[in-house]
Amino acid sequence: MNRPTIADIARRAGVSKGAVSYALNGRPGVSEATRARIRAIAEEIGWRPNRAALALNGRRADAVGLALCRPARILGVEPFFMELISGIEAELATRSAALMLQVVADHDAELGVYRRWWGEGRIDGAIMVDLHVGDPRVPELERLGMPVIVVGHPSEAGSLVPVWSDDGAAVRETVEYLVALGHRRIARVAGLPKLVHTVIRDRAFDGVCAELGATEHVTVHADYTGEDGARATRRLLSSPRRPTAIVYDNDIMAVAGLSVAQEMGLTVPADLSIVAWDDSPLSQVVRPALTALTRDIPAYGAHAARRLLTLIADGEADPFEDEAARLVPRGSTAPPPAQAG
Amino acid sequence: MNRPTIADIARRAGVSKGAVSYALNGRPGVSEATRARIRAIAEEIGWRPNRAALALNGRRADAVGLALCRPARILGVEPFFMELISGIEAELATRSAALMLQVVADHDAELGVYRRWWGEGRIDGAIMVDLHVGDPRVPELERLGMPVIVVGHPSEAGSLVPVWSDDGAAVRETVEYLVALGHRRIARVAGLPKLVHTVIRDRAFDGVCAELGATEHVTVHADYTGEDGARATRRLLSSPRRPTAIVYDNDIMAVAGLSVAQEMGLTVPADLSIVAWDDSPLSQVVRPALTALTRDIPAYGAHAARRLLTLIADGEADPFEDEAARLVPRGSTAPPPAQAG
Repeated sequence: MNRPTIADIARRAGVSKGAVSYALNGRPGVSEATRARIRAIAEEIGWRPNRAALALNGRRADAVGLALCRPARILGVEPFFMELISGIEAELATRSAALMLQVVADHDAELGVYRRWWGEGRIDGAIMVDLHVGDPRVPELERLGMPVIVVGHPSEAGSLVPVWSDDGAAVRETVEYLVALGHRRIARVAGLPKLVHTVIRDRAFDGVCAELGATEHVTVHADYTGEDGARATRRLLSSPRRPTAIVYDNDIMAVAGLSVAQEMGLTVPADLSIVAWDDSPLSQVVRPALTALTRDIPAYGAHAARRLLTLIADGEADPFEDEAARLVPRGSTAPPPAQAG
Repeated sequence: MNRPTIADIARRAGVSKGAVSYALNGRPGVSEATRARIRAIAEEIGWRPNRAALALNGRRADAVGLALCRPARILGVEPFFMELISGIEAELATRSAALMLQVVADHDAELGVYRRWWGEGRIDGAIMVDLHVGDPRVPELERLGMPVIVVGHPSEAGSLVPVWSDDGAAVRETVEYLVALGHRRIARVAGLPKLVHTVIRDRAFDGVCAELGATEHVTVHADYTGEDGARATRRLLSSPRRPTAIVYDNDIMAVAGLSVAQEMGLTVPADLSIVAWDDSPLSQVVRPALTALTRDIPAYGAHAARRLLTLIADGEADPFEDEAARLVPRGSTAPPPAQAG
């Protein structure tokens, strides 16, 4: 299904394209009854006037869409999203293209926004983020026929073009390092369990821990906020056999976890090792600076934008696997305390 | 001057509106010479096809524009802009409106983007940031007739509607506090000198320091990056009569300044007091946590967006002075060392 055209309306209404144009542009030449019928059909199939004007002139919108289904206020404090957007902007700027950004309440609202933007010719394509398991947006966006890049794993991207990085490899590198330091009781404060990359990390963490003999591993899920990361950390550190190392799925939770450890009288890294997933200025300015899984997130956003522009221009683009995050050891990781048994 | 219409073109060309419509829509009914002349006039006065389609249907774009004249990569690490954007998004989301975001190289490119978006009916208005002294964008945007909110001081906003906060009051509160602690040699690592709010802060800093007897005050300008903030700090701390307190115009420079002080063997706050302008997670997680001028930046962005939506809906909106930043003392400020004389 492509964008509805005046020809589609004409065919359905059994009238000429000229009559449709008269009816929709409020010009004389058709009866009021026909005008009403044509308008109803236009409404029904989602035709929008701008699209016609654009098609007539062969113009591109020179804009791509990004509808974000998360609280707007979180955007300002979460480095990942802002770095991703900055990378998208950097790539778009080289082509004088704009980003249409809207915060939406849920997936239905997100699809509604994309349908409207696409139908009205306001965007040439979109970038979809926060891929879920069995994501309902994928079949809907496939049906829409709009060029879409999915920032997420190909296994759940359907026929949409994915840009992703290997989360499993990053988990392996981290767990191998902690086990080599002597850790056996490793916990992970993970992100939302419905997200595909969380599932992939969960599975890899379980697998690699089991394989390397870190048998007392545990994963708890949190919502990426500092508050939730702190709560999860308190719970983990209050258990009778508390972990000697914790891996966090983002930097905000890791920094909050560091504060909790300190407030509970533990010294990092002597009593507890901490690893942050996604490096940021935040994880580097705390003391001790955090060992982190680092990747070039602006570059990741730029890759997605570049592939979307290719997809728009050529009608096709190759999937792209970006580099996996690399572990950068800093002051927050060390061998576990001797008495931990 | 409002958005150019087909009637404007018809008047200039001395033809009927119908003829203009034929010519611009590539339909027969006008000679090739007339078509070329009409297209040239349309181009000259900045008419764009979408606008016509929109006007015909009385539709709003349901989007507002923000063209940012700064390196895209800085966006991801500077909390101020991302928090401002998150606040704008939060307000727009309540009205299902989108933000058109584009990073541009200079003011000319910014104006070009606004002209195009406005001419094509892609935005209903815009938010202008980084107000300069004698800003060339102000008269150009006035001429365009587009609803615009300026995030900046009314003195330089012309007839555009300003949303601002009192930088002078925040400077006074900071300097009074430092003088009360006993500081007399106070330095300021300021932002770009061409920005209106920098000029206002510079002037207030000089005035209040002189008034309160902090006669050895000095201001150096930097570009908001950590590198530049570090360089300025090194220079200040290498001078024979080094300052006992430094106020930074953003959090990134303040955090960098703290690192430089520590690398030069100074203890904060015993040897040097540090104040950050604009609080952020960054200034709170360093040790010592930084005394900061704090304000609700997302709310500031939301105020600007709300006024823009009012301006679009009603044709007018009142200027709005947001609360001034408040000083939140933390561990980075203390009386100066006894031997400082």
